[in-house]
Amino acid sequence: MQAPAVRFRVDFGRHGAIGPGKIALLEHIGTGGSLSQAARELGMSYRRAWQLLESLNSSFRERVVRSATGGRGGGGARLTPFGRLLIRVYRDFDAELQLQAARSFKSIADLTRQKGARGVRGRRAAPIVRLKDR
Amino acid sequence: MQAPAVRFRVDFGRHGAIGPGKIALLEHIGTGGSLSQAARELGMSYRRAWQLLESLNSSFRERVVRSATGGRGGGGARLTPFGRLLIRVYRDFDAELQLQAARSFKSIADLTRQKGARGVRGRRAAPIVRLKDR
Repeated sequence: MQAPAVRFRVDFGRHGAIGPGKIALLEHIGTGGSLSQAARELGMSYRRAWQLLESLNSSFRERVVRSATGGRGGGGARLTPFGRLLIRVYRDFDAELQLQAARSFKSIADLTRQKGARGVRGRRAAPIVRLKDR
Repeated sequence: MQAPAVRFRVDFGRHGAIGPGKIALLEHIGTGGSLSQAARELGMSYRRAWQLLESLNSSFRERVVRSATGGRGGGGARLTPFGRLLIRVYRDFDAELQLQAARSFKSIADLTRQKGARGVRGRRAAPIVRLKDR
């Protein structure tokens, strides 16, 4: 069997949400000290990275990142203590969640179908559409 | 503050995934005994509902639903014991997760910004007024 992986985001109602994209962005900013570098490393546009950051900064009364060298594009950025707290709380929750999922879904995961056991073509039996299942 | 809500899906690698859409579909089938009715109730197309179900049935070695009256569209459908197990495990995990999130993210949720405190245009400005009614 394969251990199940939980993909999740935490929604604070109208106040915003945090999920793997925003947390990864914060982590890369923490490591590299630069928003534009973090965006490149994550394969997202600078504009998209900036939007994620703005969303975080406007969701909470504490900023998550401060500009280190002024407003120039690609300027330095560093995490605030609150930004570091956000990462830590999220990652701790994530780790606990995955452990809990492995326990809770063991009986289910044991029953996943072994793809190798199916026909090679298998076009009719297999699901055709890749589901996003929102 | 607002209690955070975790939105999640459980991914079994190449074997498939389960999330709120599939579980809601199973629950409605369990209640109404019909795939087409379940689809209507959830505001999804019959085709979409059928795809979700096929994905589930092909992900696991046990079927989640059996057709009760043959293959006609809209025919009766009922949950198998495995289908009921899937719902129960998912919902138990969900409930535990939400409790855990409330604990883990309390310090974060307490810092969500009160939207009412922002200016009407409010795109650039930081919140000026600190609301008391948290």
